[in-house]
Amino acid sequence: MAIHGGSGTINRTEITPEEESAFRVGLEAALNAGYAVLKQGGSALDAVEQAVRSLEDNERFNAGKGAVFSASGRHELDASIMCGQTLNAGAVAGVTNVRNPISLARAVMEQSENVFLLGSGAEDFARDQKLPIEPDEYFFTELRYQQLAEAQQANKTQKTQLDHSKRNTGKGTVGAVALDQHGNLAAATSTGGLTNKKYGRVGDTPVIGAGTYANNETCAVSCTGYGEFFIRSVVAYDISCLMAYKGLSLKEACAYVVQDKLNVMGGEGGLIAVDRAGNVELPFNSEGMYRAWRNQMGQGEVAIFA
Amino acid sequence: MAIHGGSGTINRTEITPEEESAFRVGLEAALNAGYAVLKQGGSALDAVEQAVRSLEDNERFNAGKGAVFSASGRHELDASIMCGQTLNAGAVAGVTNVRNPISLARAVMEQSENVFLLGSGAEDFARDQKLPIEPDEYFFTELRYQQLAEAQQANKTQKTQLDHSKRNTGKGTVGAVALDQHGNLAAATSTGGLTNKKYGRVGDTPVIGAGTYANNETCAVSCTGYGEFFIRSVVAYDISCLMAYKGLSLKEACAYVVQDKLNVMGGEGGLIAVDRAGNVELPFNSEGMYRAWRNQMGQGEVAIFA
Repeated sequence: MAIHGGSGTINRTEITPEEESAFRVGLEAALNAGYAVLKQGGSALDAVEQAVRSLEDNERFNAGKGAVFSASGRHELDASIMCGQTLNAGAVAGVTNVRNPISLARAVMEQSENVFLLGSGAEDFARDQKLPIEPDEYFFTELRYQQLAEAQQANKTQKTQLDHSKRNTGKGTVGAVALDQHGNLAAATSTGGLTNKKYGRVGDTPVIGAGTYANNETCAVSCTGYGEFFIRSVVAYDISCLMAYKGLSLKEACAYVVQDKLNVMGGEGGLIAVDRAGNVELPFNSEGMYRAWRNQMGQGEVAIFA
Repeated sequence: MAIHGGSGTINRTEITPEEESAFRVGLEAALNAGYAVLKQGGSALDAVEQAVRSLEDNERFNAGKGAVFSASGRHELDASIMCGQTLNAGAVAGVTNVRNPISLARAVMEQSENVFLLGSGAEDFARDQKLPIEPDEYFFTELRYQQLAEAQQANKTQKTQLDHSKRNTGKGTVGAVALDQHGNLAAATSTGGLTNKKYGRVGDTPVIGAGTYANNETCAVSCTGYGEFFIRSVVAYDISCLMAYKGLSLKEACAYVVQDKLNVMGGEGGLIAVDRAGNVELPFNSEGMYRAWRNQMGQGEVAIFA
């Protein structure tokens, strides 16, 4: 199993020891939540959902509680989940007030005949499914509010848009991939998107094939990074196709997509992936990526920097 | 160049000679609109946009004017476009009142720093870009209104959802693919989605990699069909990967994905595709698909049934 809490310009000079410690505790807790499911013989789907819920509930990560603010001052949340055994998938984009968007994505997958629901319609579905709904205040954090103010100030005083490095400070998707004892793979991804995003902007997180993909024949993948590039590159499915059609190993496919293809385009970010044999990869071309993994022997690590 | 006007249970017993003639005239007009661009040395991007605009403006096709009604009685429109030369892409989902969603998708690609915009945010962007906005009445057609009434009546009297064949009567995506004189490929897709769709449901049309994909190295693809299956199968990018990574021809890749993979899943529909050599494929596993193509020698056809 592997999880991530976002990628970007993360280096030791920008993060205090206390913050670093809090991130590590959060990553460890999310990994434990998912790993416990697997250890008890549970499904990869349950494991990735539980891990992502833990990160959504943790206000330090940009998903669920603590998500970034959009230009309109809301928290517009995206999530998707996919089952490698059935190739079933669920995705939601631009939803507000749903406490755990990843559980809504799973409900879309299992309780609706659809795969992809948007905005207020998706929220209506969440209410019909009796999923927890929270007021705007639940999602509020002072840090994210300051980031919005700074982004809006920068937009006012600069003619150009925020540059990529500044965007990254407000970025951070969360995700999980897992292989269970039954040989099934699953992937899940959730995000608040970009600080000060306008016009209903959505990145790769809710796009099956781009931000999330799982297939028992190949691998499970969850991405984080500059979403526009990940959509155009169909990153998650690309990893799977390189394995299925070109015979690359997970490691080779990940290296090619993240270090070669994405780097050439200027697509900063990373991903986590696990294959059907339990091999784990956590490649990124950004300065850092919040990440953690643990294998069937209990070996693993929690890491942030390159 | 090739275009489609949707796939589904289309057979000679369900369509009058007058309707068939009107569909053929509409397909021919859209093909001519795109082909004229190519003949004058214009870009594949301009050609697919013009062809799709023609289909959006034609009330017989389920995109733009004449789109199906959602459960809330609105016209919720999705579209996407991709340039094979730059791998730039633009997509919009759940937009209302925008006359030509494909031109909005193109504006997203060229005039914003984003790829994928949703709902009212995307409409705000359309207004900022001075794209034509129309009142609800513009999109109204009696046929689609009757289909909504029938779908809602069927939902009331049946415990189960509408079956697939009935869904198909209200279906119909439009799309275009083209290769220009400069060797550039492009693809575009636009739809009103499913009659009586609920909860902000979106299909594969606005999902880059699923409903639309273009890459000068391989091919340009636009899909139509039961969108949930096309999302889960990442159909458009799958065609490209089978060519790039497995060395299949366009014809082999299309046959494998549409007749084998999608059929096994139960994913009814079809697609149009053109490769860098100008080969055209228009495969479908449904009863029919509104379609037309024409090559550089002026050879081609307009067809509806299998």
